[in-house]
Amino acid sequence: MGPEAELMNRVVAEVLAKLEQNSARKKGIPVGVSNRHIHLSEDDLARLFGEGYSLTPVKGLQPGQYAAEETVVLVGPKGAIPQVRILGPPRKRTQVEISRSDGFILGVHPPVRESGKVEGTPPIYVVGPRGGFTLQNGLIVALRHIHMHPDDAAYFNVRDGQRVKVRAGGDRALVFEQVLVRVAPSYRLEMHIDIDEANAAGLTNGDEVQLVTC
Amino acid sequence: MGPEAELMNRVVAEVLAKLEQNSARKKGIPVGVSNRHIHLSEDDLARLFGEGYSLTPVKGLQPGQYAAEETVVLVGPKGAIPQVRILGPPRKRTQVEISRSDGFILGVHPPVRESGKVEGTPPIYVVGPRGGFTLQNGLIVALRHIHMHPDDAAYFNVRDGQRVKVRAGGDRALVFEQVLVRVAPSYRLEMHIDIDEANAAGLTNGDEVQLVTC
Repeated sequence: MGPEAELMNRVVAEVLAKLEQNSARKKGIPVGVSNRHIHLSEDDLARLFGEGYSLTPVKGLQPGQYAAEETVVLVGPKGAIPQVRILGPPRKRTQVEISRSDGFILGVHPPVRESGKVEGTPPIYVVGPRGGFTLQNGLIVALRHIHMHPDDAAYFNVRDGQRVKVRAGGDRALVFEQVLVRVAPSYRLEMHIDIDEANAAGLTNGDEVQLVTC
Repeated sequence: MGPEAELMNRVVAEVLAKLEQNSARKKGIPVGVSNRHIHLSEDDLARLFGEGYSLTPVKGLQPGQYAAEETVVLVGPKGAIPQVRILGPPRKRTQVEISRSDGFILGVHPPVRESGKVEGTPPIYVVGPRGGFTLQNGLIVALRHIHMHPDDAAYFNVRDGQRVKVRAGGDRALVFEQVLVRVAPSYRLEMHIDIDEANAAGLTNGDEVQLVTC
């Protein structure tokens, strides 16, 4: 076999490997649509529901996480939103996640942020059955993100903190850019988007989207 | 100059021409965010507002089109939406355009359609100050689209009816696929999206998006 034929063989092998790799990464990622919700610290939970109060889980989410039976009211300068679901268990720091359209109802326009990055976010008033408080920093529009087990991250060849592109098909097909990858052993593969994003893409809980690899 | 050098020159010229063409098509397209609205036929206008009623224009839209002072109430099986803007002038056929999130309020889930394609769409009840009627076919979620003057279509090298991709930048960057191009001499360059789409992409009236040419 001459050098040209050898080169050709290598090129063909490389192309086939690349194609296989890309198609392997085409496993679907199930979508979870997040409605507005609040994560409470133990202290803030006590402020809203009384000392020693315990949340009542009603629905499992990511492993170890749950939606509680209890809700709060959010109050902003232009309006209020009742029945905002509490997600448990309690965290170190209280955080409220709303959609951009919720922001128009409340009259407050928080930035798009990843969870925990709450510096410089606008205040919001939170009310429960036993009291209320102003959350000074903690109101965000959640950056769309994918929860991944380390096995999934290996499979998709991505790492924690990376931004990727994700395609949704159908009659409102679109490609979300700036999708944050979050990797932890406790995570189950799921892409979290808010209701605005779900509606814009025609997506519903459990629909599958695809990582865009090129 | 030998045949190889000649070939190389031709390749370079082709690449440069292609690059120039692509960059020429990078002119921004201003966004117009459509809230829920209704186009009325003359007959349906008379049903809602009385015989011989004339709409009062309050804001110009695409050339010859306007938002009227008058509004209607939409009523579905699960809820109602008041103050739904009428767009004029009257058309041959009544058409209601809502967002997917409006559909959840009303309890009715129309398909994503281009204007005028209303076969098999679900009914909706329309109420005005002098009467109401059930619109049997005419309720849609509008397919996102770009209005273009023929000069714009030539500039972007697209034709009426074509579907294109459009990119919005920023912290909610995304690429809308399935964007319908609509070309007419009476059109001014503008991409129309609904509020769900605007919120998902972080867009506001007058923001600019880019045609994706590759």
